[in-house]
Amino acid sequence: MKYGIAIFPPKKIQDVANSYRKRYDPHYALIPPHITLKDPFEAEDSEIKEMVPHLKEIAKEMQPFEIEINKVSSFTPITNTIYLKVEPTDIIMGLNEKLYGEHLPGEREHSFVPHITIAQKLSDDEYSDVYGTLRMKGFDLKETVDRFQLLYQLDNGSWTVYETFVLGEG
Amino acid sequence: MKYGIAIFPPKKIQDVANSYRKRYDPHYALIPPHITLKDPFEAEDSEIKEMVPHLKEIAKEMQPFEIEINKVSSFTPITNTIYLKVEPTDIIMGLNEKLYGEHLPGEREHSFVPHITIAQKLSDDEYSDVYGTLRMKGFDLKETVDRFQLLYQLDNGSWTVYETFVLGEG
Repeated sequence: MKYGIAIFPPKKIQDVANSYRKRYDPHYALIPPHITLKDPFEAEDSEIKEMVPHLKEIAKEMQPFEIEINKVSSFTPITNTIYLKVEPTDIIMGLNEKLYGEHLPGEREHSFVPHITIAQKLSDDEYSDVYGTLRMKGFDLKETVDRFQLLYQLDNGSWTVYETFVLGEG
Repeated sequence: MKYGIAIFPPKKIQDVANSYRKRYDPHYALIPPHITLKDPFEAEDSEIKEMVPHLKEIAKEMQPFEIEINKVSSFTPITNTIYLKVEPTDIIMGLNEKLYGEHLPGEREHSFVPHITIAQKLSDDEYSDVYGTLRMKGFDLKETVDRFQLLYQLDNGSWTVYETFVLGEG
């Protein structure tokens, strides 16, 4: 099965993200707004059972932390993806690092850019138009994150939560 | 915020449910296939923080249990909802009972019928057609459930998982 690890940011940020995703993100219906912490990886049930205690340990050793969003950015020219840029604090960068630890399944394929996708798979014209408008807009979102989620993918491409890991809890 | 409690059944059952939901359930994109254990209720953050330890206790005192689906059924004439009927074992009925305990927010509004909705808001003609076909079909799904989820609703009507409660765990 395919698994991934993500943060669902507090409702307020999800609602802002969805106001754009609804129009510009074809994955809108597949998963709530999220910060991907570990990209999709294949794993057997048994590997996940082994992984869960490691994830608990990682969560337990952390404390809730703030995320801050001030603007949108984009992955162009690689893809026409537009995202809410999550400020890359040491804490979130360190959490990502731990989730690619050697005891855990799933290999890193690119460097970590904390973000919440709000538009993707746009045509070039649509991309220029939407990005042109959004990059002028300031955002002022600051919220506390206190958990992350291990998810698995269904046959239709959507994601279901397998387990929640609460920061600072055993 | 509005909260609810549900079981996401194992992937195999979710994939079967989605094969119907995709065509017949307008809530297809709002939440993965689920067995509602506690209907949506309003609660403050503080009430949820108080509720979580109770839910942990309820989960801890249980063990993983089997669910069995042999056929579809319907809520007609109340609504044109068609669902996979989850056999109402003592275990799942007892779990529902505990989730309406007096220390927890949210009042019971109707008796508990364990089910996974696969079609709703159909026209009468569509309903007759779909139900006529599906009720002739046997299902033979038996899987183990080992967790339930506390979810909250976003402004667009979709649901995000707040926390997972694993049965038999502290």
